[in-house]
Amino acid sequence: MNTADNAPQASMESTDASNTTTAPRAVDWENPRVAAILTAAAKCFSRSGFSATTLAEIGKELGLRKSIVHYYFASKAALIHEVQSFTYRKFLDRVREATASASEATGPARARRALEALWEALQADQTASGLNIEVWSAARRDPELKRRAAMLQQDQRQIIDEAIASAGDVARKPSLEGLPVLAQAVLNGLSISECIEDSPEQAKKAYETFLHLLEQTLKAK
Amino acid sequence: MNTADNAPQASMESTDASNTTTAPRAVDWENPRVAAILTAAAKCFSRSGFSATTLAEIGKELGLRKSIVHYYFASKAALIHEVQSFTYRKFLDRVREATASASEATGPARARRALEALWEALQADQTASGLNIEVWSAARRDPELKRRAAMLQQDQRQIIDEAIASAGDVARKPSLEGLPVLAQAVLNGLSISECIEDSPEQAKKAYETFLHLLEQTLKAK
Repeated sequence: MNTADNAPQASMESTDASNTTTAPRAVDWENPRVAAILTAAAKCFSRSGFSATTLAEIGKELGLRKSIVHYYFASKAALIHEVQSFTYRKFLDRVREATASASEATGPARARRALEALWEALQADQTASGLNIEVWSAARRDPELKRRAAMLQQDQRQIIDEAIASAGDVARKPSLEGLPVLAQAVLNGLSISECIEDSPEQAKKAYETFLHLLEQTLKAK
Repeated sequence: MNTADNAPQASMESTDASNTTTAPRAVDWENPRVAAILTAAAKCFSRSGFSATTLAEIGKELGLRKSIVHYYFASKAALIHEVQSFTYRKFLDRVREATASASEATGPARARRALEALWEALQADQTASGLNIEVWSAARRDPELKRRAAMLQQDQRQIIDEAIASAGDVARKPSLEGLPVLAQAVLNGLSISECIEDSPEQAKKAYETFLHLLEQTLKAK
């Protein structure tokens, strides 16, 4: 056990205590070693699942002793929570960048371009997709992981909502109120389909059908 | 370890050896004790996950010794595979029944009714939903579980496909080819959303939006 006075450890306590939107971070993502541990941990967790991965294995990926990993993260639970937030924030940053590129278009075309960008960002980050599936399962038994997962779902939905809102008034009809939740469910559901059936083309075709339904409906109004 | 000569054990071997559509069953689902073990196991696995659940715990649910569970199932892996197939078959039977009730309607209304029935069947079976999430995670590391999950996905999709086909020629346009995969992704994705965000109403609204998009598109053709 590491007992350094100034150990910048992430712990359940530190995250629970600060429930504001910009919670002060217990670990510093800008610290290159912290970022390296989080990146290696994301890879290991995504590959082997949370329960089968040890802190020693994560250290081994980087040629670090387990005690170094422990210096930054008090427990595997704390590391899991941090990895999830870290991976998802990086993913959301890329999504924001990608959807911003759709802002040249207007109306329904813009919503379509933004949703296409979201799809591509997800395809490009297989570690995040794998980690998501592990999180959905583990969050059923880990309230803190569930709380964080719910917050990140909301963040992703806000990006989708903004992109859809840019399609104009048509997208604001009461009958389309559930669209951001639906689009997110489509993305999550197709990542499962891809994973279980090894069928990226089938998933892509289904996503195109979704965009087609959306386009037809936005046009019809 | 049970060494009875005629032990009706399910094992990885017995299921791997027979890769036909109607694989001879190693365990008899009609045997009341087998059905009771599978039902109890589904409950335990859905609640605690695969790795945290022991055969002893499953036995305890039924007041049976672990050795009795072992008599029917050679290993936890074999039990997991069997529970998944058992739970999902029961679910598909209910779905078939439910979608059959939609057959009085015709055209787009029939597709809608069938998809509503599918939603209700999923809502009514929280054990199956929970088990699904565990399976998606575990299947990433268990090829046999993945193979079975993929087969069951296909079965569910066929039911969806038949329901949609009944909506008439419009549903057969190339632009709607991905519809069964999409509908399944929506159902799976919304079960995750419900689970992570404890939000059945939000999920229901998103599903209604999906049905609305589908209806608008089928009408527009």
